[in-house]
Amino acid sequence: MAGKEHNGGRAPGRTLGIGMVGYAFMGAAHSQGWRTVGRVFDLPLRPVLAAVCGRDAGAVRAAADRHGWAAAETDWRALVARDDVDVVDICTPGDSHAEIAIAALEAGKHVLCEKPLANTVAEAEAMVAAADRARARGRAAMVGFNYRRVPAMAYARELVAGGRLGALRHVRVTYLQDWLVDPDFPLTWRLERAHAGSGALGDLGAHIVDLAQYLAGEPIVGVSALTETFVRERPLLAGASSGLSASGGAERGTVTVDDAALFTGRLASGALVSFEATRMAAGRKNALRLELNGERGSLAFDLERLNELSFFDGADPARTAGFRRILVTEPDHPYLEAWWPPGHALGYEHTFAHQARDLVHAIASGTEPVPSFADGLRVQRVLAAVEESAEKNAVYTPVTP
Amino acid sequence: MAGKEHNGGRAPGRTLGIGMVGYAFMGAAHSQGWRTVGRVFDLPLRPVLAAVCGRDAGAVRAAADRHGWAAAETDWRALVARDDVDVVDICTPGDSHAEIAIAALEAGKHVLCEKPLANTVAEAEAMVAAADRARARGRAAMVGFNYRRVPAMAYARELVAGGRLGALRHVRVTYLQDWLVDPDFPLTWRLERAHAGSGALGDLGAHIVDLAQYLAGEPIVGVSALTETFVRERPLLAGASSGLSASGGAERGTVTVDDAALFTGRLASGALVSFEATRMAAGRKNALRLELNGERGSLAFDLERLNELSFFDGADPARTAGFRRILVTEPDHPYLEAWWPPGHALGYEHTFAHQARDLVHAIASGTEPVPSFADGLRVQRVLAAVEESAEKNAVYTPVTP
Amino acid sequence: MAGKEHNGGRAPGRTLGIGMVGYAFMGAAHSQGWRTVGRVFDLPLRPVLAAVCGRDAGAVRAAADRHGWAAAETDWRALVARDDVDVVDICTPGDSHAEIAIAALEAGKHVLCEKPLANTVAEAEAMVAAADRARARGRAAMVGFNYRRVPAMAYARELVAGGRLGALRHVRVTYLQDWLVDPDFPLTWRLERAHAGSGALGDLGAHIVDLAQYLAGEPIVGVSALTETFVRERPLLAGASSGLSASGGAERGTVTVDDAALFTGRLASGALVSFEATRMAAGRKNALRLELNGERGSLAFDLERLNELSFFDGADPARTAGFRRILVTEPDHPYLEAWWPPGHALGYEHTFAHQARDLVHAIASGTEPVPSFADGLRVQRVLAAVEESAEKNAVYTPVTP
Amino acid sequence: MAGKEHNGGRAPGRTLGIGMVGYAFMGAAHSQGWRTVGRVFDLPLRPVLAAVCGRDAGAVRAAADRHGWAAAETDWRALVARDDVDVVDICTPGDSHAEIAIAALEAGKHVLCEKPLANTVAEAEAMVAAADRARARGRAAMVGFNYRRVPAMAYARELVAGGRLGALRHVRVTYLQDWLVDPDFPLTWRLERAHAGSGALGDLGAHIVDLAQYLAGEPIVGVSALTETFVRERPLLAGASSGLSASGGAERGTVTVDDAALFTGRLASGALVSFEATRMAAGRKNALRLELNGERGSLAFDLERLNELSFFDGADPARTAGFRRILVTEPDHPYLEAWWPPGHALGYEHTFAHQARDLVHAIASGTEPVPSFADGLRVQRVLAAVEESAEKNAVYTPVTP
Repeated sequence: MAGKEHNGGRAPGRTLGIGMVGYAFMGAAHSQGWRTVGRVFDLPLRPVLAAVCGRDAGAVRAAADRHGWAAAETDWRALVARDDVDVVDICTPGDSHAEIAIAALEAGKHVLCEKPLANTVAEAEAMVAAADRARARGRAAMVGFNYRRVPAMAYARELVAGGRLGALRHVRVTYLQDWLVDPDFPLTWRLERAHAGSGALGDLGAHIVDLAQYLAGEPIVGVSALTETFVRERPLLAGASSGLSASGGAERGTVTVDDAALFTGRLASGALVSFEATRMAAGRKNALRLELNGERGSLAFDLERLNELSFFDGADPARTAGFRRILVTEPDHPYLEAWWPPGHALGYEHTFAHQARDLVHAIASGTEPVPSFADGLRVQRVLAAVEESAEKNAVYTPVTP
Repeated sequence: MAGKEHNGGRAPGRTLGIGMVGYAFMGAAHSQGWRTVGRVFDLPLRPVLAAVCGRDAGAVRAAADRHGWAAAETDWRALVARDDVDVVDICTPGDSHAEIAIAALEAGKHVLCEKPLANTVAEAEAMVAAADRARARGRAAMVGFNYRRVPAMAYARELVAGGRLGALRHVRVTYLQDWLVDPDFPLTWRLERAHAGSGALGDLGAHIVDLAQYLAGEPIVGVSALTETFVRERPLLAGASSGLSASGGAERGTVTVDDAALFTGRLASGALVSFEATRMAAGRKNALRLELNGERGSLAFDLERLNELSFFDGADPARTAGFRRILVTEPDHPYLEAWWPPGHALGYEHTFAHQARDLVHAIASGTEPVPSFADGLRVQRVLAAVEESAEKNAVYTPVTP
Repeated sequence: MAGKEHNGGRAPGRTLGIGMVGYAFMGAAHSQGWRTVGRVFDLPLRPVLAAVCGRDAGAVRAAADRHGWAAAETDWRALVARDDVDVVDICTPGDSHAEIAIAALEAGKHVLCEKPLANTVAEAEAMVAAADRARARGRAAMVGFNYRRVPAMAYARELVAGGRLGALRHVRVTYLQDWLVDPDFPLTWRLERAHAGSGALGDLGAHIVDLAQYLAGEPIVGVSALTETFVRERPLLAGASSGLSASGGAERGTVTVDDAALFTGRLASGALVSFEATRMAAGRKNALRLELNGERGSLAFDLERLNELSFFDGADPARTAGFRRILVTEPDHPYLEAWWPPGHALGYEHTFAHQARDLVHAIASGTEPVPSFADGLRVQRVLAAVEESAEKNAVYTPVTP
Repeated sequence: MAGKEHNGGRAPGRTLGIGMVGYAFMGAAHSQGWRTVGRVFDLPLRPVLAAVCGRDAGAVRAAADRHGWAAAETDWRALVARDDVDVVDICTPGDSHAEIAIAALEAGKHVLCEKPLANTVAEAEAMVAAADRARARGRAAMVGFNYRRVPAMAYARELVAGGRLGALRHVRVTYLQDWLVDPDFPLTWRLERAHAGSGALGDLGAHIVDLAQYLAGEPIVGVSALTETFVRERPLLAGASSGLSASGGAERGTVTVDDAALFTGRLASGALVSFEATRMAAGRKNALRLELNGERGSLAFDLERLNELSFFDGADPARTAGFRRILVTEPDHPYLEAWWPPGHALGYEHTFAHQARDLVHAIASGTEPVPSFADGLRVQRVLAAVEESAEKNAVYTPVTP
């Protein structure tokens, strides 16, 4: 099949047709991941960029041409129905995740769903149920917490899992951005509760809750939270928006999500956790910073310097002990076997190729991909507990197990 | 008087006799401050290291010799009664602060009291009342939050007060140490509630609460808190201890203070605050790290690199904007007029000379020194609210105004 | 034409056929650049990955499949002769650059040639002559100094050209790697004078000489140099090698290139320059670090943190002056209009997409691409002066203008 | 003796009378060192600040009061002749070092002489001869390369001496300041060859040459050098000057020293060295940055962050290897047994207390202090070779052994 021949594939042998819904920021990043993965990694299946879907026919056709998708659809149900689509990759706002994902799984497709898994716990639970049913039929469902695929984060998990930190005492993570500092930044869908579910919490908080649970290897069991919306009215959108950049008109509307969320809590082991997600930190562009302290060592990381991991090994003698700046670019670091020589930096988008790699392997081997929808639900439940605590005067609120 | 001639003084003219109670870590640091201040700064009064007080006669005599105090006393009441003592400098554990400070003020002495001001709000209130009465008689009372005297912090306050950050959105501060990571570190007085009042909270938390309120220029109005003691039993002390270093025996006792305290809250303006104080962060030796985000700019600081202040000026064009690493060693930076050429680093102990400078000027001019006992009480009330919130399941707890 | 339809292209309209010679490390990086450029940037011509060439038929066929090239050739002359090849992209070792480039230009092709332009000045001069003749016939020739395309470097050039640094006083650049620290790293072609021309000098030194001349906007006019080969014998190669990773056998051969080269010199304006290129700096993986000091400001950069540029603006008041850490990820930074939101890191390979973008624009508009072969020759002449100086006891050696 | 009782001393027992010549920047720093050393360290002799000397009677009297010296002299010969002076501490410009030092040694005094040892090799040789004669009579002579006493540097030397870096390949050091960037900075004595000997070379270059030889444990055997004076005329001084800060008048005079010096060279072992000393690096205040690369590891240091040492241990597995940021504030780091708890920063001036400590121990034990005058001469010979090479077109110039 000609289409399969020229899109993203390499090896002869079986192909894996990808159909993507949505083509804004996340769609561009996923496209780059799907186009690149087979060129860099050895894969058991050859991904083919079969079709992309969006509501505006002209725009989706242009996006297909731009990003290398063979076909364009304007109805996601049509995309799900295509024979040449094996995987439905959902890059839409959170309010449509559940409907599309469940339909796709029921239609026998594998699903990759952007984070957050859904806007509500109920939706997420329905998605997990659908994923469970689909799994019985050999279909995979994965949620797109791509930061697990930053090599430094995957390697950090190996260090924690290998006991190099000992029992954890503290996990602290901030995710700081500044694109809402300007009070005239307009009211995009990301600032509307109906579409985005929540603000910094669901967008940034979801990432850091997942990362914390992933790195620690244990769930958050309770939280205490404060949230705030500093700028409560913003200009209504003058035209179309990609969600992250846009211009506003003279009229103003009400912001219905949080600008910032702070929460503390506990892991199952008793370790203390501390989180801060905000879009109001002037000068911080993408400052996902985390630190884990254990009885044997510590780890620190900053997404703005994503090729580096800081590791303090408590086993070193005090005189020579110190945080090591590890450049996570050695051939035996996770995902690095396929890239450049040591010291040659990877970027943000590589996480999407890594995500694609891991999903393809899971599909080919019939194993459940991680993070699973259940992992996504666990994050959703933490976010729900955060919102509940924030409404209840920050009282410590258990997370539903 | 000969003694006044040769101890720490310089200029002819009036002297200011200092009497210090306690001579461990803080006593050594204060001594260095008093010895140095008149050698570096132009002062209206000449500090004289008149007498030091401690319970063990031999040890206090040795400390007097070591640190340059003319006389030694074994009873703080005798020290307070000395004619050659104008200022009583209290460097003892928190449980004795109130009694000594109140007695000294009532005896007509000026008082410098180490932080935290006291172990309880009630004590702190009594101390403020005594300070108010003493102030009416021209006596000064100051609490030793020396980190306000790190030049970078004094300069940060100037930037905030000058409006360079605009309305504050976030203040986040961590104070991370690791000297309790080892479960065999012994049970010094710092780990006993009876002497220390609390653990990381009163020791480290007091510093960062004061710094946050100082830098922001407004009080914390409510908090939500979690505290934890990870290692609940530790070896009993085998011998004497300076509080920070010691060795333990085979028998174990119960730790009665927190190892770590996390709290979030709000400033009067509505800005969100986030604090973490811990002695269990492997590899972090003295990591007081803070960041302030305002609508016009941000500041960041790390006490382990105390000569540097990071400043993001939102007024810069986006292309050239970035956090500036300001070396706070220029002649027109606070306290720097008296030190070395630009780029020549100051250290931790300089804060005590700066503190002494400011107190001497306040005494000479008859103005109230800052931080005042009222400032110390404000910190104490925040700490009390933290403890109350921690006991009440982290519920948001207003701070008594 | 079907082949042109599915390889790397997007827009309808004219295509630009690319033929690449060599497919090791540089070939993989160039492939990624050609595949990606049209997916990210708006281009006037659509690059098509027409054919790749290598001597081993099986290996080149596998490389074509892996990297997305439509056809494979085993003779570069055949590649040059192909009608569907408009641009010949030369990714072979330096000893073959001149022959291939000159033949390609004479055959009416545009040429992109990896750095260094050649192994000798004579070859480079012949290439410039060929490029001049080809230019008269509307053909472009460009040398692949890809680090000019790191956004931070392109932006640094804008700052220098805009006078933000004033007259330059110092340019200092080190390029430190450590893959030869191990004395058992084998004797790959990169360590043989016959193939590589020189060692750290031609490989790393060529990059930093070009960067220095590019950023300063003026040539190096003289140099004084020391070179050294610390490990003079290494294991002969046991099998094939990509040049940067390989394993060696028991027999040893002589290293005929430098391990390290140090040189100082002067720019035309009289500014002092300082360079160090080495493969023997334990722990430094790809540490291209540079600093420019001018009478009005300074710039600093480290390739291991390639999304950051440090800028000291001497126009700032001393109190608020400091090196700004600019994240070069804003939409109006060079090349960034097409990538991700602010703070989302780019990586090493992006430079190859940027290089491809600039070449395509130059070809489409008929302007001479930069860096030109003449720029490459200028670098070569500096390297030749370095070698001459090193042979003549480091005496200051003028660079042929 | 009363005077000895109250100046800087502590322990009963023998005192050591210090007489200092010069009281500007270095004099202030040395005074702080002498005042502090006995308060912090256990010493076998008690330093007493006996007398200070300067030409202006009023100014030297004020300096004595300010810095705590018991007596003031206006003729250095009178100071040398004093019975209460055991050590003559020379803090004058380089042109007077030889005369004072030799006279003091001949008068039976111990001598501490600021760096550079002298302005010429001949003077330095005469000083070494005098030191040798004095040593035979039990008198110590030491040169004030205080940066050896930064704890991180002393610790670095231990690591190198302990073989942790293996055979050295590279030593590179820059010392960057910016106080001459302003073309209107006036013509102080530091810019006059007659007084200062040379410019950045003798002031900054002397420090880094000594540090390099100290850390490597071997001498520089040859150099190739470029020097430059960018601003050749500067305002004549309007009034008095401390050398580092001053204001100028309308008339201009000729700068007779270098603004910057670059030199490369070799250690006895064949390792390559690279140096840059400049006062024209905008934004760099005191940036003494060094890196050593050996076959087993590397070290890096920046004087602007003097409590930190970066150490790369090649023995670490590649996955966990990285430069460790060691906070050199542990009790078992050099000089740290006497200071504050871990993580509490030391500053620039502490080096002078450490220098005093080491000199007092050497005097008390009758061992030769380091760095000796012979070490100072070795530096001087390197500087002379640098000047010779710079005059001879950068030709590689051997250093007189």
